[in-house]
Amino acid sequence: MTNAQASLAHLYRVFTKPEGQDSKLAQIERHLSDNLADFLSRHVVASNRSLEDIEQDFNQSLIPEQPQFVSEHAEQLLDKLVAHSVNTYSPRFIGHMTSALPYFHLSLAKLLVGLNQNLVKIETSKAFTPLERQVLGMIHRLVYNHDDNFYQQYLHNANRSLGSFCSGGTIANISALWVARNKLFAPRGKFRGISQDGLLAGMREYGYEKLSVITSKRGHYSLGKAVDVLGLGRQSLLTLPCPRQTLDPELALKEGQAILAEGGKVMALVALAGTTETGHIDPLNELADVAAELGCHLHVDAAWGGATLFSRRYGNLLKGIERADSVTLDAHKQMYVPMGAGMVLFKDPDAGNQVRHHAQYILRQGSKDLGATSLEGSRNGMAMMLYASLHILGRNGYELLIDQSIEKAAAFATLIEAHPHFQLTTSPILCLLTYRFVPQAVQSILKGQPELAAQLNPLLDELTVAIQKQQRESGHSFVSRTRLEIQDYDSPINVFRVVLANPLTSTTDLTDILAEQERLAHTLPQYQELLTLVSRASI
Amino acid sequence: MTNAQASLAHLYRVFTKPEGQDSKLAQIERHLSDNLADFLSRHVVASNRSLEDIEQDFNQSLIPEQPQFVSEHAEQLLDKLVAHSVNTYSPRFIGHMTSALPYFHLSLAKLLVGLNQNLVKIETSKAFTPLERQVLGMIHRLVYNHDDNFYQQYLHNANRSLGSFCSGGTIANISALWVARNKLFAPRGKFRGISQDGLLAGMREYGYEKLSVITSKRGHYSLGKAVDVLGLGRQSLLTLPCPRQTLDPELALKEGQAILAEGGKVMALVALAGTTETGHIDPLNELADVAAELGCHLHVDAAWGGATLFSRRYGNLLKGIERADSVTLDAHKQMYVPMGAGMVLFKDPDAGNQVRHHAQYILRQGSKDLGATSLEGSRNGMAMMLYASLHILGRNGYELLIDQSIEKAAAFATLIEAHPHFQLTTSPILCLLTYRFVPQAVQSILKGQPELAAQLNPLLDELTVAIQKQQRESGHSFVSRTRLEIQDYDSPINVFRVVLANPLTSTTDLTDILAEQERLAHTLPQYQELLTLVSRASI
Repeated sequence: MTNAQASLAHLYRVFTKPEGQDSKLAQIERHLSDNLADFLSRHVVASNRSLEDIEQDFNQSLIPEQPQFVSEHAEQLLDKLVAHSVNTYSPRFIGHMTSALPYFHLSLAKLLVGLNQNLVKIETSKAFTPLERQVLGMIHRLVYNHDDNFYQQYLHNANRSLGSFCSGGTIANISALWVARNKLFAPRGKFRGISQDGLLAGMREYGYEKLSVITSKRGHYSLGKAVDVLGLGRQSLLTLPCPRQTLDPELALKEGQAILAEGGKVMALVALAGTTETGHIDPLNELADVAAELGCHLHVDAAWGGATLFSRRYGNLLKGIERADSVTLDAHKQMYVPMGAGMVLFKDPDAGNQVRHHAQYILRQGSKDLGATSLEGSRNGMAMMLYASLHILGRNGYELLIDQSIEKAAAFATLIEAHPHFQLTTSPILCLLTYRFVPQAVQSILKGQPELAAQLNPLLDELTVAIQKQQRESGHSFVSRTRLEIQDYDSPINVFRVVLANPLTSTTDLTDILAEQERLAHTLPQYQELLTLVSRASI
Repeated sequence: MTNAQASLAHLYRVFTKPEGQDSKLAQIERHLSDNLADFLSRHVVASNRSLEDIEQDFNQSLIPEQPQFVSEHAEQLLDKLVAHSVNTYSPRFIGHMTSALPYFHLSLAKLLVGLNQNLVKIETSKAFTPLERQVLGMIHRLVYNHDDNFYQQYLHNANRSLGSFCSGGTIANISALWVARNKLFAPRGKFRGISQDGLLAGMREYGYEKLSVITSKRGHYSLGKAVDVLGLGRQSLLTLPCPRQTLDPELALKEGQAILAEGGKVMALVALAGTTETGHIDPLNELADVAAELGCHLHVDAAWGGATLFSRRYGNLLKGIERADSVTLDAHKQMYVPMGAGMVLFKDPDAGNQVRHHAQYILRQGSKDLGATSLEGSRNGMAMMLYASLHILGRNGYELLIDQSIEKAAAFATLIEAHPHFQLTTSPILCLLTYRFVPQAVQSILKGQPELAAQLNPLLDELTVAIQKQQRESGHSFVSRTRLEIQDYDSPINVFRVVLANPLTSTTDLTDILAEQERLAHTLPQYQELLTLVSRASI
């Protein structure tokens, strides 16, 4: 055997022979399976090693020439990667929308890779294609609640589509606005439609002076990307002020009508059902009226909040969502599915045809290939994860998860309001809320003398940033932060942002987090400065 | 305990307690780990159950109310889903770019879900962010081969980017052309750039009569989607004929100059390094000259062929790729990583800034959040899979895989050419080739009397479709088919398309596949018709 043959034989082994039961990789797998929390707490080191320091472990730009043993590499992954990952499973990681997942997803992830289907076309995803269509149908029904006949007609229809799976909410939002744009500039006369002839020809044909998308200041940043990529430009995105955290329908209507009066056209109104920053829900019914009045597409970005529909108690917070032309929903948020399970749904099963495309070797006319109406091409079978979750948890299970999250957030809000040194800045509607640390002495001054806010808030802003950073770096818990305009003040303020989606987060976790923040605050120079300022102001 | 509390407790168990060692899910996992080929051959039923029939298993649009036991659901997944999946691991599944994967990806998939990081921002992906940047750097260096200084400067630079990971080649191609478009319509004077002011204002400012993207007829269908979504319209995509399967630089230059002469502008030239249909590589160096001459962005879609760069023997087939402004590469194709690992790379580390965006709660100015320049938002840590592969296989391992694929395709081409009843329609450059079944009697007539082609080819087309369909449905092996124009005939013909990427595919597999196709052909009515026609023609 030559050297090359020997190497090739060695290589084939990687494709055909699993690692032994005692191998490092097998050990890691067992640990993950047996006790994920323990695996993470042992291997994710809560160090305050700086990012710049971690980067030193990843500073090679040359691909190593020689192969490495799997076990040796597994050790390195533990040391370099896992050790400095973020423990998103932890009940005290409540800063973002990534939370603990049900155990069965670990096994399913392995099955998914073992099957390695490509859902762009049936030839590489036979049963996965109908499965994905069913899952889209189930979520479509959760949102739009059509009858059996409707779903019998459209669930597996080759020429229609109830929506698309995609990598996440951003692609879902872009897909929805892509459809909205193409629908608006439909073919007529010699104009073959925007898909064929482009935006410039469309604007000429329809004679619009300008094109706009209306949303609130809480609109997700992906909307800015969407109007950029779609050729409208970010100037076309009207982000209306929302000091009460929801879009005022009257304001939206007024602004929309002003655009129409100037010869412009509103392409879409984007309502938010669970803003990323505060979890507020726009008045969907009223905004549906506004969209009807303006003659525009209504898109509801329910990436985060859409799962609330599982709850019979809280689902009607989203009343009116069934009037949306399109809806974004992320299963990797409140549906507890691993990262990468976004969905866009269309009320009209014909909507996807606005962006239908074909190729010679796949996506042929009349095929049921899912890739024919999706923005993405090759995709994996993430729909299986949601399919399994919908069955294993059931609607009742999801309902319980949603209800307990919302009620936990309400309880945390009560804790914060009862605490002398914290200020609740936005009340939770779903399981998101924002707050900040404000020493009691400062709070009483702020209440009595709102004109002092302009002076005190910048210092409080600094304090918030410093506490959040220290807390993150100490690694015991994590809240995020954002900058918001709220009703009480003229200028935006920095606030902590928490998302109470992890079912394992307990009241003890929450009180401990407040205690830690208070402790950290006392060590910070901004705290002393504030007290000094206040003592002067009191004199 | 109330009913609700009991249900909640039950639910928490799904988040905290793994399935037992004897559970169905644990059994599935063990089978996957111990012998993937056996798992697939036992569970993937090679049935010719029709798609419509399979759809009956996925026709529920109501989410089940009640939770289901994990093991019960796992059984159902095996019966309904796995049984009717496609065995992409099989050495006889050679129709698409999905192939066997190294074993370690099964374990890593589990680790990935266990960690469930979100790479849009560092706060949810601490070490994964530098890891992804390193992987992008390694692949960037494989393509562009800059020196150490370059990578030291840019690998972890907050204000620069060497590229982006994304779900696949389609998003990569769209991202590349998005950057190209925004670069072309840069801010000047009162015009704030296309990202801000949109395409219409950009066209006015720059005074272009039309905007074009040039590629060949083999350009991936995602390019059509890209010009649609970017607002240019599909009419802007010039797909030039390429009867020899590669884009003729002279033709590209001529067409490009014609556009310029009419007051138009060529936004980008897209060269293909490994066409999806035949694996041919456009003359990159010459096309780089053309792009320079036309003053346009050069994008190379190397989603499939880019991995050839690992090979010292065949890598220079892609000579000139280092002159591309952007390159698409899919790790889930010839890098043997699970589905969902696309990349776009930019020669200029400043290019990504054409689409840079910020938000209040993440992607802040100066942060190293990867989401600031990516089309997608939340993303999982697929980069880990490629990182591990690059280390465990090493460049040498990848080189061996690439070399043996290319050499296997050459050997298969020889087999086909030696076979009396098959016709090689495009020779393999990489590991893709196309061919068709043409009975010897027909072949000799076709050779002597090319005017008969117009009569015979439609029947041969039908035969190709029928053989491919029967073969797919019988489930023992799979080749795909496409429709191509080739040099020999005036009109496009249907051909089988094979991709010999699976290292486990042997010569026996290939001879058996030809034998199966020949056997199937004999049972088909088109075959008899052809023979009848030929016997008449011979008389």
